[in-house]
Amino acid sequence: MADLITIEDPDDPRLRDYTGLTDVELRRRREPAEGLFIAEGEKVIRRAKDAGYAMRSMLLSSKWVDAMRDVIDELPAPVYAVSPELAERVTGYHVHRGALASMQRKPEPDAAELLAGARRVAIMEAVNDHTNIGAIFRSAAALGMDAVLLSPDCADPLYRRSVKVSMGAVFSVPYARLDGWPKGLEGVREAGFTLLALTPHEKAAPIDEVAPHRLDRVALMLGAEGEGLSRRALMAADEWVRIPMAHGVDSLNVGAAAAVAFYAVTAGRPPA
Amino acid sequence: MADLITIEDPDDPRLRDYTGLTDVELRRRREPAEGLFIAEGEKVIRRAKDAGYAMRSMLLSSKWVDAMRDVIDELPAPVYAVSPELAERVTGYHVHRGALASMQRKPEPDAAELLAGARRVAIMEAVNDHTNIGAIFRSAAALGMDAVLLSPDCADPLYRRSVKVSMGAVFSVPYARLDGWPKGLEGVREAGFTLLALTPHEKAAPIDEVAPHRLDRVALMLGAEGEGLSRRALMAADEWVRIPMAHGVDSLNVGAAAAVAFYAVTAGRPPA
Repeated sequence: MADLITIEDPDDPRLRDYTGLTDVELRRRREPAEGLFIAEGEKVIRRAKDAGYAMRSMLLSSKWVDAMRDVIDELPAPVYAVSPELAERVTGYHVHRGALASMQRKPEPDAAELLAGARRVAIMEAVNDHTNIGAIFRSAAALGMDAVLLSPDCADPLYRRSVKVSMGAVFSVPYARLDGWPKGLEGVREAGFTLLALTPHEKAAPIDEVAPHRLDRVALMLGAEGEGLSRRALMAADEWVRIPMAHGVDSLNVGAAAAVAFYAVTAGRPPA
Repeated sequence: MADLITIEDPDDPRLRDYTGLTDVELRRRREPAEGLFIAEGEKVIRRAKDAGYAMRSMLLSSKWVDAMRDVIDELPAPVYAVSPELAERVTGYHVHRGALASMQRKPEPDAAELLAGARRVAIMEAVNDHTNIGAIFRSAAALGMDAVLLSPDCADPLYRRSVKVSMGAVFSVPYARLDGWPKGLEGVREAGFTLLALTPHEKAAPIDEVAPHRLDRVALMLGAEGEGLSRRALMAADEWVRIPMAHGVDSLNVGAAAAVAFYAVTAGRPPA
């Protein structure tokens, strides 16, 4: 059972995990260095807890104390009850979901470890936008991808905005960061995966013709909105696949493209 | 060739098409009543023009005059050159794309007319969010849906935000509004379409098992984010289909779900 502590001083050092949440650059450095991430809103906080992340503390507007009572009773982490005004002064924004939790990161698994048990993997290259990362994780989880691998320059899936947009799917799909790029892809191929690069390039085969759902192990490579996969990533792939486009449209948004590609590699595949 | 007119008075009546663009309620009423819609940014303006919409006028920051020179030379509509400050005073926001056009609506076609030439149709029920409407049109266009039908209470695809999010796809996929709901669905069935309702309901069949890409004419029914299709819409369908979900995830966002479903009904279908 947690201590419920009312705090009225915005400079109280116990609120340090929550300071300056709108300063993306600051939080980007601080959170991995200090081993924490922020879960926002009742649903996401519960999902983080259920996924086995340890809670460091919670910051609640008073009216959220009742809704979170069972979590407060269950966990030993301190709970700071504050006014909405104080929450805004500390975090830098109006916390309209009324509940924030600082959660302890877990060590990220090795890519090799993830690959051993997986048959459908998404690999992102240089996806820097936290909203896109979150959207891709949400679709990856829903559509049955077993794991996600990230190039070293991808943004942090546990950044507050990614977590929120993913609706907590970043907790349910295991992910790892590849050590080198594109060198890290060799290990994926050695683990028995066919590397499919998703690209609008005209030399790519329509993904439905390639019928990737019939392949035993598929690693689907995705680039960032706009640029797409780099030339060296494309060169490292086994095959290029594209989503057939109609009406003279040149692209889908990255979330829609990822969802379609995940569906194409997972739907109707033979059970493991 | 258009007249290029410099305007310095925000109350100049020639700017009336562009006043109060951030007032959604006002614009929702005014635009259909006055037969106009607003295209924003160079790319979208060009796509509206190429799709055969007549231009009423353009509002340009001075530095955009050169980029739009060919359009100005080609069309007879007046072009109002204004300072960024004046554009902001008139429209209510900072027009960072620097170019707005007021375009003339065309009469919407009959649903029956659209259905005659179509084999893959999306039907939206009560999709009120302009961003979602735009995202669904973008995917519908890219993935080869032939037409879109809207329930009477769907939002306007030509609202500025819908147009922008769709990247102009609302110009390339023809759409019509159904007269009654769900009564209007009868005409769709009479035109030879199988009505598939997309729903997470457990009684729905996995969409890949239904193999809708093998059906001759498919009308895919989609509801709004959150609520999904109404009970009476579900009752009016021929079959319920769902996107198989994994990892205990309960839903995809509506844009991703629509994209997957459009892919499932169009990919690899026999050529017309």
